[in-house]
Amino acid sequence: MNEISIIPITGLPEIKKGDQLASMTLGAIDDSGNEIKENDIFVVTQKVISKSEGMERDLNEYKIEDLIKNETKQIIRKRGDLIIAQTKHGFICANAGIDKSNIEKNKALLLPEDPNKSAKKFRNQIESQSGKSVAVVISDTFGRAWRKGQVNFAIGSSGISPIKNYIGKFDSFNNELFATEIATIDEIASAAELVMEKSINIPIAIVRGFEYEKSNEDASLLIRDQQEDFFL
Amino acid sequence: MNEISIIPITGLPEIKKGDQLASMTLGAIDDSGNEIKENDIFVVTQKVISKSEGMERDLNEYKIEDLIKNETKQIIRKRGDLIIAQTKHGFICANAGIDKSNIEKNKALLLPEDPNKSAKKFRNQIESQSGKSVAVVISDTFGRAWRKGQVNFAIGSSGISPIKNYIGKFDSFNNELFATEIATIDEIASAAELVMEKSINIPIAIVRGFEYEKSNEDASLLIRDQQEDFFL
Repeated sequence: MNEISIIPITGLPEIKKGDQLASMTLGAIDDSGNEIKENDIFVVTQKVISKSEGMERDLNEYKIEDLIKNETKQIIRKRGDLIIAQTKHGFICANAGIDKSNIEKNKALLLPEDPNKSAKKFRNQIESQSGKSVAVVISDTFGRAWRKGQVNFAIGSSGISPIKNYIGKFDSFNNELFATEIATIDEIASAAELVMEKSINIPIAIVRGFEYEKSNEDASLLIRDQQEDFFL
Repeated sequence: MNEISIIPITGLPEIKKGDQLASMTLGAIDDSGNEIKENDIFVVTQKVISKSEGMERDLNEYKIEDLIKNETKQIIRKRGDLIIAQTKHGFICANAGIDKSNIEKNKALLLPEDPNKSAKKFRNQIESQSGKSVAVVISDTFGRAWRKGQVNFAIGSSGISPIKNYIGKFDSFNNELFATEIATIDEIASAAELVMEKSINIPIAIVRGFEYEKSNEDASLLIRDQQEDFFL
């Protein structure tokens, strides 16, 4: 197993609707004197994807309650102002993933319509412009049941197997491993967060050196069915 | 923000009760021609801590049900063979954190009695033997509500603030950040897992280059009180 590097992409401007995020990312990497490598994993925060896709809503035009309602499949818990909701994508998170930070005042930002499609588009553009094979993870900041604080998880992905499956493999004592499936793309999203500062502008990072399995599956694989879930 | 490296420690033997884990780790780093640096973060899996602390139990002597019962403060869910329990430490996890993989057949491994104390001891020994300031995170593999697959979270820590708090800070649009507390040590545990292979023997990794706040607080800070929790 080799060393892994987590490399912040600096120098990106504020992202606006219609911006060509992949080209701008390659430009920023070039300007900083770096280059991308074969099998680099791009971790892109939901915020810049949503902004480039025009998911900003003006709170003078829309009520935040209505925006949340429209993004919600099912309310899981509600206490005071805080709503934990299952979004139409299947994510369970605060306020159906709608955010009012890192955006102009009086605006709110919705999640991308289809984060896996966004990941695939970003990946295709990086690959066609750079000639390198890469993977893409779209990250967002999630609270967890039972644990304080938030971490980054993957809401979209392309080109990388979302799960590393040890089931049926054997450990060094020759015990068969029965229950271990590692949600690799969630760990990659968390790792990348370590170089992303919320108060400054680092919305994209590269995770380099991780040996991953290429796959056509995407982050929707990590959403547990209601019937399988103990806590829904 | 600088690049972060995640460096696997290779060459450690199987760990037994009484082994001096910190000395062995420094030995393995030395043997591989590497050296530790000021402010390195050591991520150590629970398994090697538990083994060195004699937390193995022989299943010819103990029934697994009794071991789980003894580690459990509260059963959260039970379905078939699977028990989701709150351990006496406060963690909510499968089988009260007891594991039968990566251990001799017919043995089970309990969590350390006090993972924060284990982290502190490991840190003190690394610091006194190397002369460098370091931080330590003890990691374990956790399932999550609502999401498939498992990730590594922190069950113990020493020398690093468990949470990065953005509350009261301002984003680049001058919005005050109200709700963001990042569980940094959980993200560090997840990042380190990317270089740890469950089927081979890499139980320790170094996370290098992350600018963290030193702190006397430990991983117990991440356990949410029952009264504050929506899902207990």
